[in-house]
Amino acid sequence: MASPALWALLRGCRGRVLRPRGDPPGRGSAEVVATSERYAVRRLPFARLGDSDVAFFERVMPGRVVTGEEEVKPFNVDWLKSVRGCSQLVLKPQTTAEVSQVLRYCYERNLAVTPQGGNTGLVGGSVPVFDEIILSTALMNRVISFDKVSGILVCQAGCVLERLSEYLEEQGFIMPLDLGAKGSCHIGGNVATNAGGLRLLRYGSLRGTVLGLEVVLADGSAVDCLASLRKDNTGYDLKQLFIGSEGTLGVITAVSILCPQKPKAVNVAFLGCQSFAKVLETFTTCRAMLGEILSAYEFMDEKCMELVERHLKLSSPVTGSPFYVLIETSGSNSTHDEEKLNNFLEQATASGLVTDGTVATDDKKIKALWSLRERITEALTHEGYVYKYDISLPVGKLYDLVTDMRARLGQSAKSVVGYGHLGDGNLHLNITAESYSHSLLDAIEPFVYEWTARCSGSISAEHGLGFKKKQFIQYSKPSEAVALMQRFKAMLDPKGILNPYKTLPSAPESSTR
Amino acid sequence: MASPALWALLRGCRGRVLRPRGDPPGRGSAEVVATSERYAVRRLPFARLGDSDVAFFERVMPGRVVTGEEEVKPFNVDWLKSVRGCSQLVLKPQTTAEVSQVLRYCYERNLAVTPQGGNTGLVGGSVPVFDEIILSTALMNRVISFDKVSGILVCQAGCVLERLSEYLEEQGFIMPLDLGAKGSCHIGGNVATNAGGLRLLRYGSLRGTVLGLEVVLADGSAVDCLASLRKDNTGYDLKQLFIGSEGTLGVITAVSILCPQKPKAVNVAFLGCQSFAKVLETFTTCRAMLGEILSAYEFMDEKCMELVERHLKLSSPVTGSPFYVLIETSGSNSTHDEEKLNNFLEQATASGLVTDGTVATDDKKIKALWSLRERITEALTHEGYVYKYDISLPVGKLYDLVTDMRARLGQSAKSVVGYGHLGDGNLHLNITAESYSHSLLDAIEPFVYEWTARCSGSISAEHGLGFKKKQFIQYSKPSEAVALMQRFKAMLDPKGILNPYKTLPSAPESSTR
Repeated sequence: MASPALWALLRGCRGRVLRPRGDPPGRGSAEVVATSERYAVRRLPFARLGDSDVAFFERVMPGRVVTGEEEVKPFNVDWLKSVRGCSQLVLKPQTTAEVSQVLRYCYERNLAVTPQGGNTGLVGGSVPVFDEIILSTALMNRVISFDKVSGILVCQAGCVLERLSEYLEEQGFIMPLDLGAKGSCHIGGNVATNAGGLRLLRYGSLRGTVLGLEVVLADGSAVDCLASLRKDNTGYDLKQLFIGSEGTLGVITAVSILCPQKPKAVNVAFLGCQSFAKVLETFTTCRAMLGEILSAYEFMDEKCMELVERHLKLSSPVTGSPFYVLIETSGSNSTHDEEKLNNFLEQATASGLVTDGTVATDDKKIKALWSLRERITEALTHEGYVYKYDISLPVGKLYDLVTDMRARLGQSAKSVVGYGHLGDGNLHLNITAESYSHSLLDAIEPFVYEWTARCSGSISAEHGLGFKKKQFIQYSKPSEAVALMQRFKAMLDPKGILNPYKTLPSAPESSTR
Repeated sequence: MASPALWALLRGCRGRVLRPRGDPPGRGSAEVVATSERYAVRRLPFARLGDSDVAFFERVMPGRVVTGEEEVKPFNVDWLKSVRGCSQLVLKPQTTAEVSQVLRYCYERNLAVTPQGGNTGLVGGSVPVFDEIILSTALMNRVISFDKVSGILVCQAGCVLERLSEYLEEQGFIMPLDLGAKGSCHIGGNVATNAGGLRLLRYGSLRGTVLGLEVVLADGSAVDCLASLRKDNTGYDLKQLFIGSEGTLGVITAVSILCPQKPKAVNVAFLGCQSFAKVLETFTTCRAMLGEILSAYEFMDEKCMELVERHLKLSSPVTGSPFYVLIETSGSNSTHDEEKLNNFLEQATASGLVTDGTVATDDKKIKALWSLRERITEALTHEGYVYKYDISLPVGKLYDLVTDMRARLGQSAKSVVGYGHLGDGNLHLNITAESYSHSLLDAIEPFVYEWTARCSGSISAEHGLGFKKKQFIQYSKPSEAVALMQRFKAMLDPKGILNPYKTLPSAPESSTR
């Protein structure tokens, strides 16, 4: 267990609602259509919040119960401003015991609860659909321990990813995951959604790096599987069920995670390719030549580049190509790494795979190149309403979906763009329009899901299903698997109070469309 | 789906029961005391096998039903020859449909079933305790597909690990796991026991590399989660529950697994250290200096070396040290890798961390050095009865347990040795005696578990709990977690027919000791 000083180290955003760099522009949450209006979803028969409930919570956590309409508003709306609940209550526990007390009470009272981390999710999973109580992890932001020999970090669920990264970097380590929302997202939310991000290619998924979890179940009982061991084969690996369950099976209160050593040398190459075929061939070539030092292979199309330049005023040192690739190396010897990278670049240029490019080794230029890729999500929100798709596909077919969608939608969409983690087979397909429209949505869905299913892809590579995608699970999972998931849900949360209307499909009579 | 030619490729051990190199010497299975005699375990009220049952199975899989006492015998005894069941029937399905038919029938009839892969487990998990039907995956040995772009292999559960390794090496890839029993163990068994092994340090655990599973549940229903995608966040990750569940929740029939590219350069250094403190410091130094190319850091004490020299006639080029370390590097550039390794060795020698050593780059010498470490398990069996402990501990305390145990047991043990995957914090503590004795066991247990629990370690790092360790789960897992595991078991296998008496503790009245 850590000293009080260590525990206090990561505090600092108490009470503030941080957002990723650049809020979606100028559209207040008041304008967001309520989820219950836009989608034909029916409220389940949970109890309604009463004054005596609020009084109870005030006794449990005095001064950390938020009830004012204006104060609650930002917790009701997702970052994309695409869904809005009408919760009247946000609770901010500081300890696992408080989370237990809250859930035990809610379970008893049949009050529905939506756990919320940094509220940076993209599928409407982190905000209520109706009046669910919001259980925010914002004040659960203590580092519990960090062991420099093993690289194992144990912390509360509400630690902001970027704060953890900064804390670890001082000690010569890094977090095994990194993503655009790092300035706001909580590690508990990352784990609850099995976030992928920019380092998965190198350090693997959270299913391998998360070593332990502490979780509070729907009935308030806490399960402590917060082991700090690299290997532990004593019984079933319970924690895995909570990783990626989007708060529907339990509330993650603490995380134990294996952190890699900070690489001594990092290089970023930003390259232009004349076709997607060349993007693919560049990937195969660099994977072979860079081998163990390859830590990211990202791609974006020229339309993405236009958007970050237009809306965010970023400027790229590489221009005039239909596709761009960002390659990152991380290694322990800068001379070796540069030699490997140079050999690769020489070959890629000589063979015409790459027609333009730049390489960065200093931190500032590296950050600037990464911004071109990381801030696409943000740039897109400036276009109006964004229809977001996060698809796993065999890499060879990754861009065909973008081309097909562009042809299908024609002038009815403002932009159809493709970018993503090519090295992981993960495409982010985004379609923008001035505002939300049912007819455009009907032109996109289920076409996009059918296309994906034909390639045995996944309709959610890393974003999860949340509220917006849950009815489409059958495109990626057989019905026996979905039925089994429903049995797990019924076993762990028989009253269904935890993040209702999320992840698993609702019964046909309460369709979400 | 693969061509018939591909499907046939990995056949070749049909009907033969392969063993790891070197059977435990000269002790026929007839001499092994029946588990039900040695341990006071009570048979649960399952149905007894009748002639009509055998006739049914003969109709399902003609010619693949083994009933003769001599033929069944090797399937009843574990590799260590430490436990023995009295099954009268071995079934050898070739397809998932056959596994389904078998389990549906057994579920209906209340017949207990023990799934068995290569039968190389070390905790008595892979053989029956009483008369459970043995469901062998030996004939489910087809490669279903391999994709050279993504490195994703899909195969049936009964493929032998070494056959898969050979198949992949021809295509420039390797399996993400490697272990001493590779010549016999089945990939399905590896996944069912969440095997760790020699490459975990570099490629992570099966929880990250296994991308999909096909599983048949106790009632015979098949669940197809055999995705071949690096990322898929559509609902709960059901496959994780079966990884490491030792055949108690379902029978794994097929596996999808992510395979790394074959490294272009491999080096092995075998070093002598004068103390365990120096072994630890050598680890910290090499982790920093070898970084991303470090692929194994194994240690063994001088007693282990004595045993492999005496019993297996191996000879080590490095002698006269109380501790030995095996370091492997795997990388994409031999010049860079050798330079990194040489820099490390110079520093380790100059600072006195290492007093003797040898380096191998050619395959034959590398294999010879690995044998010194890999064949310790086999050498130990030549000593008589082996009490095996597979413990996760904070690395700094890893060898203290060996020293304490040696002091505690004095002359009552023949040998007390320590070796293992130091880089993963995993100690293999082994104690040998001429033959099994209750009193020696009582001197070791629960002392070893209490010692481990005091350090917040795991009483099974990679071997699992099986039959022999299941009653000790509470030393590594809190009672709420065990209770939750029992709920999962009851939900998925309400009659408890799948691998009974394993993994989870039995009720107090049917204690195993």
